[in-house]
Amino acid sequence: MNRRSLKKVAAAIKKYKRFLITTHTSPEGDALGSELAFYRLLKKIKKQPFILNQDHLPQEYYFLPGSQSIKSYKSINQFCFDCMVVLDCSDLNRTGKVYKLNKQNRPVINIDHHISNNKFGEFKWIEPFASSASEMVYLLYKEMHVPLDKESALLLYVGIMTDTGSFRYSNTSGFTHKAVEELMLFNLDIRKIYRDIYENISFPDMQFLIKVLSGIHRSKDGRVAWVEIPARLLKGRKVFFDLSEHILSFLRAIKDTQVVVLFKENFSVKDEIRFNLRSNGPVDVNKIAQHFGGGGHKTAAGCTIAGKLKDIRRRVISRILQS
Amino acid sequence: MNRRSLKKVAAAIKKYKRFLITTHTSPEGDALGSELAFYRLLKKIKKQPFILNQDHLPQEYYFLPGSQSIKSYKSINQFCFDCMVVLDCSDLNRTGKVYKLNKQNRPVINIDHHISNNKFGEFKWIEPFASSASEMVYLLYKEMHVPLDKESALLLYVGIMTDTGSFRYSNTSGFTHKAVEELMLFNLDIRKIYRDIYENISFPDMQFLIKVLSGIHRSKDGRVAWVEIPARLLKGRKVFFDLSEHILSFLRAIKDTQVVVLFKENFSVKDEIRFNLRSNGPVDVNKIAQHFGGGGHKTAAGCTIAGKLKDIRRRVISRILQS
Repeated sequence: MNRRSLKKVAAAIKKYKRFLITTHTSPEGDALGSELAFYRLLKKIKKQPFILNQDHLPQEYYFLPGSQSIKSYKSINQFCFDCMVVLDCSDLNRTGKVYKLNKQNRPVINIDHHISNNKFGEFKWIEPFASSASEMVYLLYKEMHVPLDKESALLLYVGIMTDTGSFRYSNTSGFTHKAVEELMLFNLDIRKIYRDIYENISFPDMQFLIKVLSGIHRSKDGRVAWVEIPARLLKGRKVFFDLSEHILSFLRAIKDTQVVVLFKENFSVKDEIRFNLRSNGPVDVNKIAQHFGGGGHKTAAGCTIAGKLKDIRRRVISRILQS
Repeated sequence: MNRRSLKKVAAAIKKYKRFLITTHTSPEGDALGSELAFYRLLKKIKKQPFILNQDHLPQEYYFLPGSQSIKSYKSINQFCFDCMVVLDCSDLNRTGKVYKLNKQNRPVINIDHHISNNKFGEFKWIEPFASSASEMVYLLYKEMHVPLDKESALLLYVGIMTDTGSFRYSNTSGFTHKAVEELMLFNLDIRKIYRDIYENISFPDMQFLIKVLSGIHRSKDGRVAWVEIPARLLKGRKVFFDLSEHILSFLRAIKDTQVVVLFKENFSVKDEIRFNLRSNGPVDVNKIAQHFGGGGHKTAAGCTIAGKLKDIRRRVISRILQS
């Protein structure tokens, strides 16, 4: 653990009064859990925090305590702050347009667990071995002797649980379990938490998901498997809940497959394709996505690109097979 | 924790020399993990254990250290033992025919975490609040001051992880995480463990799974969802890898559904149906299964019953809807 950086960040927090807290675009469990738990920490030590994100809160996270305090970029005209705290972002650009609000060049605190973090900000605390930004905020509670309560425990649990794929990814450490042991002292209803976040697919969506999966294909050598969602499948569907994660994690269960891909045709923009890649093996899908103008991690990446579904699919698969 | 029972069981273990260890039919991660970890514990204290199960080891558990020491019922003609240890079984009958080998009425040690345990055996230690039989064997290592090693840590981890659905079911406690923190000191490759057990579906099996899922149904009120595998679907399939867990956990992702069911026709025995139930809500599926002669937990239960698929399905669904 980078104890010195942690101490510096804790000292900086004590110094300032008004905080703008933000995170990356398309925020998920860890981004939101760490933001809201950090917000509570600041409230408890009589600071004035507010959370401002580029993107809206996804529906499955409405249940998070304090979620209504998250403002989206568009709803804010005026704001004053002494310090900007960026959580779970490897790069300031990942906050979307939010970092541009720092016109007065207020100091930035960078709290992140991505190994690719480019070390922006006046105060930086990077822990590549932490499971999640939420695990880091947990450490901050400990360092600053701020007592946890049921709400902060729930928020930190959500961040840690979602970013570790329910404690199954290799970023899970013994310390992760130790922290969760303490969080569970607050009688968290973990079954309900899991249900709220993951087991929330409506029956029509489930039927749609199975329909998409039934179009599964794989390359001759078995290394790549994929499914696609052509725009015509989306026609007449009222709400399109994002099933990408569910689809990709389902595909990952195929034995000996190194890369799985989901191709989606944009329903409203003609000839725009989004593809998401997951790698189980030696293929660095970040490189594949970068080749087409996208990016991500070694094991999870994506890209939005102009073109015909059939053509993009052919090009992406052949690129993976060459790697 | 039932400390007195634990102490009695530990004392009994010290007393005897030759142990027959067994578990329930169709053994899964917890049954196998607890058996093999218990086997190692006995070896370490210079006892003579052997493991004898009614059923073969499922392929996805071949990687477990010591798995080759598990004998199946049919391969054994002669055996001598002073004590029989039954792990993860709520009832002696759940061992299949194995308990019948105890013709000389040797004492039986019953170590189990099912609330429905019928308290068989001379020495019984039941912990309904333990996540798994493996968590109990972990406690036994502690009680008997037997040091863990990498292999026993891996075995206990597998048992705990599989029985808690990767720490997401409500049987997961703070203590579960505390135990796992210690197990992870042995540098377990948890990603590989998860892959070996769950992400191991062959492509043809995956296509079969999707085919089964596409027959998804639900009750009018949406409370029950189910799929079925009629024997004709299994015709011509070379190996039938057990996809039940995958199917059930997939179905559980449906919002607002309280109970999911998988009905399977026995391929080799005419008019024999196996059904597995999972509950997300207030319905106690143990009671449903018991009504038909089966059993299990409040949230996960199953039953094998004679009858026609169509008829059994109708009766089971209507029983759930009445509850």
